[in-house]
Amino acid sequence: MKALIPYKKKNAKSRLSPALTQEEREDFVELMLRDVVSSLQEAGIDEIDILTTLDNGVPTDLNVNVVLNEHDLNEAINEYLSHEQKSIFIIMADLPLVRAEHIKEITARPEDVVIVPGKGGGTNIIFIKDPSNFHVKYYGSSFLNHCNIAKERKCSVHIYDSFLLSTDIDEPHDLVEIMLHGHGNSQEYVMERFDMKTGKARARITASDDA
Amino acid sequence: MKALIPYKKKNAKSRLSPALTQEEREDFVELMLRDVVSSLQEAGIDEIDILTTLDNGVPTDLNVNVVLNEHDLNEAINEYLSHEQKSIFIIMADLPLVRAEHIKEITARPEDVVIVPGKGGGTNIIFIKDPSNFHVKYYGSSFLNHCNIAKERKCSVHIYDSFLLSTDIDEPHDLVEIMLHGHGNSQEYVMERFDMKTGKARARITASDDA
Repeated sequence: MKALIPYKKKNAKSRLSPALTQEEREDFVELMLRDVVSSLQEAGIDEIDILTTLDNGVPTDLNVNVVLNEHDLNEAINEYLSHEQKSIFIIMADLPLVRAEHIKEITARPEDVVIVPGKGGGTNIIFIKDPSNFHVKYYGSSFLNHCNIAKERKCSVHIYDSFLLSTDIDEPHDLVEIMLHGHGNSQEYVMERFDMKTGKARARITASDDA
Repeated sequence: MKALIPYKKKNAKSRLSPALTQEEREDFVELMLRDVVSSLQEAGIDEIDILTTLDNGVPTDLNVNVVLNEHDLNEAINEYLSHEQKSIFIIMADLPLVRAEHIKEITARPEDVVIVPGKGGGTNIIFIKDPSNFHVKYYGSSFLNHCNIAKERKCSVHIYDSFLLSTDIDEPHDLVEIMLHGHGNSQEYVMERFDMKTGKARARITASDDA
């Protein structure tokens, strides 16, 4: 089994700009990547490929392989899948709430494909037993795309239901979930910078100074 | 075991007003309530109490008890708990994505208390084995409140991790999750009124006419 993590650092996570500057966002995505890698390693996955482009630096102390591909996300992943025989666990780099236990549960499933939906129709993790019989289609409602592709290819599917894995960190209010349910580097980073503002509605963040 | 569903219909769900009129919201909360009740009944819970106030009508065809209490949510629930000996499964009425399977899994847990977190620090479901040794504190970060109360009372706790149960329907973008992952009355209602708009970011809804 191998894990594949698509990764973009340069000007990443623009929707977090109300909360973090570009430099902070670039530091923060690297910390989230570290937390994802560390959960994969804790779950016993030692072959980890990080898929990125030439202008995105991957830290050199991570014990991972770097796979460079200048194509767009779908094309790059599908090229990768077409050359792979092993089962592939594709996980996004912005899922710092992932724990080793989730990864063990997902990879122990008997189905051909396991899809972990994100909020708003995304696919946050997809585990593909036979990469020669699958292709990905991110963007749009990728959750529905991947369900349909599995059906066309006659793959059995499990939808893995997890709040923590549905929480990709895209918007400022997602940072609250790291404070409440996170761990590791990303939690430390958010805790240092923000306070939680609670009221009757969902909790929001405020900069620590304003608290 | 008993289930308790706090319910408010009158001018409910004001944060959904960009998508639904007051009349539509009042219809819609009743449909969500029906879906929650039907999943509870399918899971074998036949004692269901709906906690509400005099000015909120509960449909009469539901095979549930209506408990009237004019106090605020916390006070009303805590009064209820203080008179109960049976285990109590408290579930919010705006969780139409709940399935019988979730309810069976939660109520089969061996811990004293099971908490199902909502987005932004909420508590969407709490299952309390011994109501005489617990009280609730909704609003603010109720997830943290309930973890702390369990700790004070020396209750063992399980945090049940579910995307579908984390999704309380409060804001227009939550309606997309009903389209993608829902069922029953609430899904039918949303499907009739909205289309999904997808792009690179999370899916949003548009009125069917604008599509």
